[in-house]
Amino acid sequence: MSETPWRGVFPIAPTPFHPDGRLDFASLDRLIDHYAAIGADGCTILGILGEAPKLDGAESLDIVRRCVTRWRAPFIVGVSAPGFAAMRSLARGALDAGAAAVMIAPPSHLRTDDQIVTYYAQAVEAIGADVPFVIQDYPLTLSVVMSPSVIRRIVMDNPSCLMLKHEDWPGLEKISTLRGFERDGSMRRVAILTGNGGLFLDFEMERGADGANTGYAFPEMLVDVVRLSAAGRRDEAHDLFDAHLPLLRYEQQPGVGLAVRKYVLKRRGVLSSDAQRKPGAGLTPAARAEVDYLLARLARHDERAALLL
Amino acid sequence: MSETPWRGVFPIAPTPFHPDGRLDFASLDRLIDHYAAIGADGCTILGILGEAPKLDGAESLDIVRRCVTRWRAPFIVGVSAPGFAAMRSLARGALDAGAAAVMIAPPSHLRTDDQIVTYYAQAVEAIGADVPFVIQDYPLTLSVVMSPSVIRRIVMDNPSCLMLKHEDWPGLEKISTLRGFERDGSMRRVAILTGNGGLFLDFEMERGADGANTGYAFPEMLVDVVRLSAAGRRDEAHDLFDAHLPLLRYEQQPGVGLAVRKYVLKRRGVLSSDAQRKPGAGLTPAARAEVDYLLARLARHDERAALLL
Amino acid sequence: MSETPWRGVFPIAPTPFHPDGRLDFASLDRLIDHYAAIGADGCTILGILGEAPKLDGAESLDIVRRCVTRWRAPFIVGVSAPGFAAMRSLARGALDAGAAAVMIAPPSHLRTDDQIVTYYAQAVEAIGADVPFVIQDYPLTLSVVMSPSVIRRIVMDNPSCLMLKHEDWPGLEKISTLRGFERDGSMRRVAILTGNGGLFLDFEMERGADGANTGYAFPEMLVDVVRLSAAGRRDEAHDLFDAHLPLLRYEQQPGVGLAVRKYVLKRRGVLSSDAQRKPGAGLTPAARAEVDYLLARLARHDERAALLL
Amino acid sequence: MSETPWRGVFPIAPTPFHPDGRLDFASLDRLIDHYAAIGADGCTILGILGEAPKLDGAESLDIVRRCVTRWRAPFIVGVSAPGFAAMRSLARGALDAGAAAVMIAPPSHLRTDDQIVTYYAQAVEAIGADVPFVIQDYPLTLSVVMSPSVIRRIVMDNPSCLMLKHEDWPGLEKISTLRGFERDGSMRRVAILTGNGGLFLDFEMERGADGANTGYAFPEMLVDVVRLSAAGRRDEAHDLFDAHLPLLRYEQQPGVGLAVRKYVLKRRGVLSSDAQRKPGAGLTPAARAEVDYLLARLARHDERAALLL
Repeated sequence: MSETPWRGVFPIAPTPFHPDGRLDFASLDRLIDHYAAIGADGCTILGILGEAPKLDGAESLDIVRRCVTRWRAPFIVGVSAPGFAAMRSLARGALDAGAAAVMIAPPSHLRTDDQIVTYYAQAVEAIGADVPFVIQDYPLTLSVVMSPSVIRRIVMDNPSCLMLKHEDWPGLEKISTLRGFERDGSMRRVAILTGNGGLFLDFEMERGADGANTGYAFPEMLVDVVRLSAAGRRDEAHDLFDAHLPLLRYEQQPGVGLAVRKYVLKRRGVLSSDAQRKPGAGLTPAARAEVDYLLARLARHDERAALLL
Repeated sequence: MSETPWRGVFPIAPTPFHPDGRLDFASLDRLIDHYAAIGADGCTILGILGEAPKLDGAESLDIVRRCVTRWRAPFIVGVSAPGFAAMRSLARGALDAGAAAVMIAPPSHLRTDDQIVTYYAQAVEAIGADVPFVIQDYPLTLSVVMSPSVIRRIVMDNPSCLMLKHEDWPGLEKISTLRGFERDGSMRRVAILTGNGGLFLDFEMERGADGANTGYAFPEMLVDVVRLSAAGRRDEAHDLFDAHLPLLRYEQQPGVGLAVRKYVLKRRGVLSSDAQRKPGAGLTPAARAEVDYLLARLARHDERAALLL
Repeated sequence: MSETPWRGVFPIAPTPFHPDGRLDFASLDRLIDHYAAIGADGCTILGILGEAPKLDGAESLDIVRRCVTRWRAPFIVGVSAPGFAAMRSLARGALDAGAAAVMIAPPSHLRTDDQIVTYYAQAVEAIGADVPFVIQDYPLTLSVVMSPSVIRRIVMDNPSCLMLKHEDWPGLEKISTLRGFERDGSMRRVAILTGNGGLFLDFEMERGADGANTGYAFPEMLVDVVRLSAAGRRDEAHDLFDAHLPLLRYEQQPGVGLAVRKYVLKRRGVLSSDAQRKPGAGLTPAARAEVDYLLARLARHDERAALLL
Repeated sequence: MSETPWRGVFPIAPTPFHPDGRLDFASLDRLIDHYAAIGADGCTILGILGEAPKLDGAESLDIVRRCVTRWRAPFIVGVSAPGFAAMRSLARGALDAGAAAVMIAPPSHLRTDDQIVTYYAQAVEAIGADVPFVIQDYPLTLSVVMSPSVIRRIVMDNPSCLMLKHEDWPGLEKISTLRGFERDGSMRRVAILTGNGGLFLDFEMERGADGANTGYAFPEMLVDVVRLSAAGRRDEAHDLFDAHLPLLRYEQQPGVGLAVRKYVLKRRGVLSSDAQRKPGAGLTPAARAEVDYLLARLARHDERAALLL
């Protein structure tokens, strides 16, 4: 595990579909090629915004195989499932296919600290202690709140825990607290890549995050902000981030965000269709016009958006 | 569909496991034989209390095939899933194997009336309008509240809806309201079989339920109460029900109920083991002693419990 | 605080209203007199089932004053509130009026162990460390799950914590665990009185509870079961409990339970009206007939019910 | 009611406290004067971000009286309460003191369409049909989801409903749908002012909102964007909005947003202290430095921020 660079930008890949609901592998290829071309460091597939629950087991593994064959980079595969049998099947299958790690979200009924810690212990037992895994900490959607001390317990109890996908909200202090645990010696170093749709990436990097693990229709911005921030070029990082923030914010609306993301990726020529499997929201003409307007405004600041004019 | 008797007692079958977590088909055979022997009218498998989420897809279909081969009775198969692809796979597979119908619970994030109605419409589109289905209305666990008018909309929109598994709480008025919809002509007749662990079966039958669709370690009681009630022998029905109520109540504790059920079924010689797959609660020695005490007390009233002394 | 007997039965008192919604103090007097007459050890007022949120501040204090004047027994006053200012006002007012302690439920948004512990620390700071208080642990309604170790932290951090109103579900092992904490010296002795509508009182006593802190239209049963159990007369305790269980179970249906309780207390001549303030459920004629039937059946076993024939 | 302009900007006022927790009326005066000076059209007090649940009844009315005396503008008073008695007391007191309307949020346990509609009917019965009221539609925090048809039912059932405080998420289509109801004649005209911390104000205005009803440390921006948008100066509205978006976004983090708002208002000389009553989050030095950095960046675009340098 040691040589994999768990830092930088791991985009959360949407899953491309044809309008009739079939998997669109040609679009998937273009999407993965795009990530490779812009300098992403890896990729997360089959996450919530990857519509993972809408796939059956065979489709999920087909996607994993296609991706790892296409690009020699570390892939993280979402394996959250209502039970450990399905989680184990997908996790072992993904690793066998060449994935680098899996991502596990807690089920929404968990409440107490002990329940959360026990859940991760049982998940590790199910998938095998040799499978590197990522904790997904996403209370806004999952309804499970993990205090920093709970994350520390999971990290210290499970050597196979390699990363925290951080998307608590508010979360900046959480990053600082966890980095403090490392400094005071109570927690080993673990990668922290941030989600939250990138809405706080500018400051997350300054608080000690190792990069971004989120989706956005211009993942180039994520790559650039992470690099500028890592290079200490603070104002430039914020300038670029702020230029994208109006669109980024629009794309992060729960319930409609994925439709925006796919629509823009289609306009960019990456996806052939912005179709989602049911249940999935589409964009109304009014919403598409709003996105187009935001793209036109973004084009004043970012040449990659200017290509769409 | 017309000749299937959607009435009487359809026990919710637990899924038998060996202590090492493998499926225990010999115990499953004995369990199904037991249901047949006591006069049950059908059976529901792969429900929540059947630990369905802990099975993978192949195991689920193996269980369906084993059951329908063992007993020529209508089987209802739980197909609730986080997405429609998995739901469709299991539903089509179950029907192909010989199941009579499927049961669908709403996912816990649904809130408004329209969201619930839309969900069932999409589920029917996914599994096919030719697949008979049962609505599972279980707010205590699922957090989704369906008003009687929502149930009516689902029933009227979907001719393939054959039954309501009623386990709202309180629920007696709901049965009366739905039967009133039928009488006033605003809803077609649909079977109502009740869950709630049987805790209100005595009065549910009197309110118009067609039977019971729940688990209990003495399903004989469910069969007898339903028959006595249908025959108008009210006091006898209540006498038998009341004799079981102390144990029934103990078995319905959320979080520990399934452990009680499997323990008693093991004591009765039906299951070889009371093992659950993880995550699953076991009984402490104190709890086992409490169950034993309840069984001894029950033995004064019911000869089937007396056999355990 | 030391001489108050925090054990035995503290009924949860409903709040009597006239049909027009005004407080009915004459019925309140009869209710309190009834508790005194049957040998209750104290009383909890202004709990959830006491419709406390439907009262304004002045009414709440009027009820406290009326009760403590009527009966020289320890009264516990529910002071749960959306903020600490209102909690403090009611708590200080209640203590000044002569109440013995207050009861505090956690607000439903609390999730992590630390959030719960911090909440109680802030509540104690608000009401004053000199005010004895009861923890209300009621996840079914409050959505807050307190592990035994969290309860231990609250007990050990706050010397003014005198009692746990236990109504977790399942909860028998929780009582055993907490008593184990006392035995191993990690937690000081605290009274445990049980709620859960009394549905598990038979075994709660055997697990180490000090008594009952719940509502039921025949609180005499609670008193008798607690005494029989304390005297080691196990079978008699269960016999009496089982005779009441059909009605007890009916009365504990969420959403309709209070209507049943008030209806029976009215039939018993304790309350003049079974009115609730809005929002509140009433009993349909069908439900009243079901309760009457249960009372008639109970009358075969309990002379206090026989008086109603 | 007819002459009150239910349009434009009604800032959500924070409640100023001294560091020791007492109400700070001098700061409240400056805050209200500030709203008047910048051209706000009215003001909402005692909302969730106004820390209303932390006040007792007397304090709430003191704040109402102070505000309406200070500024002759329409004040909306949050009266959400766990029960109707407290809601009625505050609503009647507020109107008697000179408030123009009240705002009512649904309690978080409501689920079905009928439950929500019934709740508002009972609330109107409690406060009186002569009291103008605002619906607060805020699922992210309140967990209650109101479909457009439910809002229509509330509006049509209750003539005293004057406004929707819209903060659903996503919400742009909801505005369009409701305006469509008005056009097709199925709903009477009702004011729609938007919340969501202003994060979508740019497009909300274009979808048909009448203005903003939210908090932000630079309410001047809200006023300007609403005016520019109303005047059809779209690009200018977006330019100003986008300049503020980095800070606006930072201020809208659940759990820390109010601390940011009070900190900036203190830096602007409006509040003497950024204290909150418990439970309340403070800003760490790192967070304050981040806000200061955002203010410095904002100063390049907005002279009102430049004053802070």
